[in-house]
Amino acid sequence: MYPFEDGQTFPRNHWYIAACSHELGRALFERTILEERLVFYRKEDGTPVALDGICPHRNLPMAQGMLEGDAVRCGYHGFRFEADGRCTNIPSQSAVPASFATRSYPVLERWQWIWVWMGDPAQADPALLPDMDVAGLGAPGWRADSNGVVHLKSRFSLLIDNLMDLSHIAFVHVKTIGKQLTEAAEVTEENGRVHVIRCTPDQPAEGFHRFLHPRCPGPVDLTTRSDFLGPGLICAGGPYSVMSGTGEPVGRLNFVHGLTPETRHSTHYFPAVSRDFRLDDDGLSQALLGKERSVLAEDIAALEQVEIVVQRQGDTRRELSVLADAGAIRVRRRLIAMMKAELQGAPDLS
Amino acid sequence: MYPFEDGQTFPRNHWYIAACSHELGRALFERTILEERLVFYRKEDGTPVALDGICPHRNLPMAQGMLEGDAVRCGYHGFRFEADGRCTNIPSQSAVPASFATRSYPVLERWQWIWVWMGDPAQADPALLPDMDVAGLGAPGWRADSNGVVHLKSRFSLLIDNLMDLSHIAFVHVKTIGKQLTEAAEVTEENGRVHVIRCTPDQPAEGFHRFLHPRCPGPVDLTTRSDFLGPGLICAGGPYSVMSGTGEPVGRLNFVHGLTPETRHSTHYFPAVSRDFRLDDDGLSQALLGKERSVLAEDIAALEQVEIVVQRQGDTRRELSVLADAGAIRVRRRLIAMMKAELQGAPDLS
Amino acid sequence: MYPFEDGQTFPRNHWYIAACSHELGRALFERTILEERLVFYRKEDGTPVALDGICPHRNLPMAQGMLEGDAVRCGYHGFRFEADGRCTNIPSQSAVPASFATRSYPVLERWQWIWVWMGDPAQADPALLPDMDVAGLGAPGWRADSNGVVHLKSRFSLLIDNLMDLSHIAFVHVKTIGKQLTEAAEVTEENGRVHVIRCTPDQPAEGFHRFLHPRCPGPVDLTTRSDFLGPGLICAGGPYSVMSGTGEPVGRLNFVHGLTPETRHSTHYFPAVSRDFRLDDDGLSQALLGKERSVLAEDIAALEQVEIVVQRQGDTRRELSVLADAGAIRVRRRLIAMMKAELQGAPDLS
Repeated sequence: MYPFEDGQTFPRNHWYIAACSHELGRALFERTILEERLVFYRKEDGTPVALDGICPHRNLPMAQGMLEGDAVRCGYHGFRFEADGRCTNIPSQSAVPASFATRSYPVLERWQWIWVWMGDPAQADPALLPDMDVAGLGAPGWRADSNGVVHLKSRFSLLIDNLMDLSHIAFVHVKTIGKQLTEAAEVTEENGRVHVIRCTPDQPAEGFHRFLHPRCPGPVDLTTRSDFLGPGLICAGGPYSVMSGTGEPVGRLNFVHGLTPETRHSTHYFPAVSRDFRLDDDGLSQALLGKERSVLAEDIAALEQVEIVVQRQGDTRRELSVLADAGAIRVRRRLIAMMKAELQGAPDLS
Repeated sequence: MYPFEDGQTFPRNHWYIAACSHELGRALFERTILEERLVFYRKEDGTPVALDGICPHRNLPMAQGMLEGDAVRCGYHGFRFEADGRCTNIPSQSAVPASFATRSYPVLERWQWIWVWMGDPAQADPALLPDMDVAGLGAPGWRADSNGVVHLKSRFSLLIDNLMDLSHIAFVHVKTIGKQLTEAAEVTEENGRVHVIRCTPDQPAEGFHRFLHPRCPGPVDLTTRSDFLGPGLICAGGPYSVMSGTGEPVGRLNFVHGLTPETRHSTHYFPAVSRDFRLDDDGLSQALLGKERSVLAEDIAALEQVEIVVQRQGDTRRELSVLADAGAIRVRRRLIAMMKAELQGAPDLS
Repeated sequence: MYPFEDGQTFPRNHWYIAACSHELGRALFERTILEERLVFYRKEDGTPVALDGICPHRNLPMAQGMLEGDAVRCGYHGFRFEADGRCTNIPSQSAVPASFATRSYPVLERWQWIWVWMGDPAQADPALLPDMDVAGLGAPGWRADSNGVVHLKSRFSLLIDNLMDLSHIAFVHVKTIGKQLTEAAEVTEENGRVHVIRCTPDQPAEGFHRFLHPRCPGPVDLTTRSDFLGPGLICAGGPYSVMSGTGEPVGRLNFVHGLTPETRHSTHYFPAVSRDFRLDDDGLSQALLGKERSVLAEDIAALEQVEIVVQRQGDTRRELSVLADAGAIRVRRRLIAMMKAELQGAPDLS
C-alpha cells in the first residue's frame, strides 16, 4: 500500500500508544488499533489491561459488557474473561473448557501514555519502547505536556512524510508559522532512527525565539530537527537555541507526535509539547499547546485531502521526489524493512 | 458467508413473509427480499400480487409507476404488465412481442402475513408453508397479535443464533427480563424442525407467570422453548405453564419471530405474540406486544453490533462454541443442507 | 460496463464541456471529469487553463494552492507549475529537474462553455468539436441561453438513452409536458451523428406551439428531433414548426444537452435552450429556461433511480428492447465503436 510495497500496511512488532493515561479507568474503553478492535480497562490496582475487543464466542464487542473485579463479562451470553485472557465462567454450563481464552495484549504505562504491543507477544520487550528521554518526555530537566488525542482520517505514513519534511511549513502553516526553511537539511540515520537537522546561525533574538526567551539578548544559532524515533513516535524539535559563538544553551523545545495506525486509512494522533526551560510556567505550557493545536489543524486538513487522493488512485500513480524528501524516504525504507523482517518472522532491531 | 459455507447466503425454496397484510393495498409497495427488489399490490378483488420490482425494459423501479386495474404501468416509457407478468401494452408501438414479460412471484396470504416464494416457482407448494398452528397463529383456541415489521441491520442467521440460544436472556435482557436459564436444554430435531426445550419444575406462582395468570395458586412447572419451524419462522415459546404434579395446563405463550432476509446483511423482522388463555383481554395483548418491542430493541442493538464485527472480519475468524449453542448449530446445519440441496436442483423437504 | 461492453466506460478522444464560461476566473476551480481531478483557472489575459488537479509531488489537490500570475503554486510544499504544466520553482531547493512537470490538458472556449480534451493531446483538434451551429449555439439567426450546470448521479449513457427515446415524455413528464408521441420515428446516421425524427402534420395552432408563436394561424407541421452530435452533446429539437402545405418556416426550438461524465456513475449536465425566433424576447428565454429546469428535474429523478438499479445488478441483467429504442441503440453502438478504436490507438472520426 502506498507509500510502501504491495500488501504492506504497518509494522506490528513495536510499541504503539494506545491511549492517554487519563482515558483508562474502571470503565470498558474500546479503541481500534492496527485494524483490531481492543477493549481497555484498569484492574482494581490500576494496572492497565488490553484484551481482544470482540468476544470469541459470538462476536459481540466486549465494551458492551461489564467489569467484574479484574475480569470482564461479555454482554451477550455472559462469558467472563480474566485480564490474562483466560475464560473463567460460562453461565450456561458448569465447566469451562481449558482452551477457552481471548487474546490479551501486552501493555505498559509510560509517561502519560498507555502503550500496547500488537505483534508477537513473545517479543514485547519494554526495552523496545522508543526513547522518550530524547523527546523530553519524563526526562530530568524537562517539562512535558500532553495535548490529548486527535483522530486523523489519513494513513499514518502521510503524517510521517509530513513531519519528516518541514519544508511544508511556509505553505501549509503560512497563517500560523509561515517561516521558510531555506537552510540545507542534514539527514542521518543510526540505530533505526532517522534525523533531519537544519541549523541557522547568527539570528537576532526576535519572533518566536523572543516569545520563548524574552530576556535572551541574542544573537542565537537556531536548530530545527525531525527525529524519527520509531514507527509511532516522531519528535519535531525546534527551536533548539544556543548563543552564537559561545554555543551556550538557551533552551530546547519539542513538538512531539505520537502516531498509531487505527486502520490502514486512519490514525490516532497523540501530540505533546516538551521543553527544558521555564519549567514552572503553566501559562507558557498552555500557549504552546494551543499553538500546537492550531498548527495540527492545518496539517490534518491537508493530510485528509491527500488520503482521499491516494485512496482513489491506489498504487498506480507515480510521484516526483526532491531533496527535501530525503528524510521521509529514509523512514519509508526503514518501515519497509521492518515489515519485511516481520514477514520472515525475525525481529528487526537494527 | 458466515456462519455458513463459502458463497452460501440464504435458502430460496421456502415461503418467506414479505409483508403484513395491512401493508398491501391499491398502491404500489416496494420491498427488497433475498436481495431482489419486488413490487407488491392487491388486485381489485384484493388478491395480493408480487412482481419484479424493476422494469425489464429500461430498469426504472416499477413502484414509480401506476396501477391500472389489475395491471401495473411503468413510469418511464409506460409498458403495462399484468399480475401474471405478461406485458400487454407498449405505448410507442402497436404490437407487443409475445415473449415480453416480467417476473411474477408466487404469493399467499396466511394469518396476517403475505408470504412470497423466491425460489423455483414450480416448487411453490402452499403445503410447504411453515406450521403456523404450532406457533398459535390462527389456530383454534389461540389468540395471536402481530407486532408489525422492524428493520434489522444484521444477517438473518444472527437472529436465528440469538433465538435458538436463550441463555442470552440474563445478559442482553438484564433490564427487561433478566431471568437466568440454568436448566439443561434438550435439543431435538424432526421433519426439518429443531426444538430447544428447558423445563423448570415446581416454581411458585410469581413474577411473569403471576402477571399472566393472577389467580393461579401454583406451584407450576414452566417450560421455555425455541422452535425452528423453517428458515423464516421461529417460535420462542414460554412460559408454557402447567400445575406441578397434576400437569394440568395453565396457559401457553409464544413470542413468534418471522424473519426474512432483505440482503445478505439485513433482515425484515416480523414479530408477533400468541397465547391460549385470556383470549379476549385486549389490554394483555397490548402489554405483551409492548414487552416484546422492548426486548426486541435490546436484541437488535446487540445483533447490529455483531453484524458490523462479522462483516469486517469476513470468514477468517474462528469462534468458540459451548453446549448452549447446540440448537443454533443444528439449525445452521439444516440451513447449510437446504442451500446445498438447492444448488443440486433438488428440493430439500426432509 | 452497462450498457457497453466489459471494461468500457466512456470515450476519451473527444471534446467535453468542462465548465460554463462564467465558472472560471482568477480563482482555482476543481472539477472531476472522466474520473480525473482537474484544476481550472484563467490566465491574466483570460485564457482558460486546465491542469492535473493533484500535485505530482505529494498529492495535495492543487485547488488548495494559489495562483501566481499565470502559474499555480501547490499549498503543501510550494511547487510552482506554469499553465503548460512545467514546474518552475521548488522552494526547498535552487534547481528544478528538467523533467518535472504536471499534466496540462487542451482547453477551448466556445459559445458559453469551456471544453476540455481528456484523451491523447496529439489528437486534440478544434475541428473535432461537435457542431454547435446545428444546435443553434452561437449560430447566426439564433439566440441561445445557458441553463448552467446540474449534477446528475447517473452514468452519462442513461441520459443519452433518455434523450434518444422521447417516448418517455408521456410518462416521465406527464405533469410538465405529457404529450404522447405516437408518430413513427425515422432514425438516420451520418458522419458519426444519429438522428431520430418524428413529424406530425396538420396540427392546429394551439398548446405549446401557440405559446411560442401566438400569431401563427396554423395549421402547422410539427417536427421533433433527437440529434446525437457527439458523446457530449445532444440536441433535442422541437417543435420545429412549418406552415402545413406551404412548408413556410415558423420557428425552430432546441433543448440542448451538454453531458460530461464525472465518474462512471455520475455526470455533469449542461442544459441550454436555443431558438431562431423572437430573438429579443428575454421573457421568453426565462420561461423556456424555467420549463427546461422543471422537465430536467423529472428526468434526473428517474435516471438516478435507474443508476441505483444498474449499479446493483451489475452487467448480469438482460433488458428488453423495442422499436423506440432504435436511436439509442445506434448511439450505444457508435460509443462502443469509439471506445474500441481508442483501445487500438486509432482515432475514430467516422
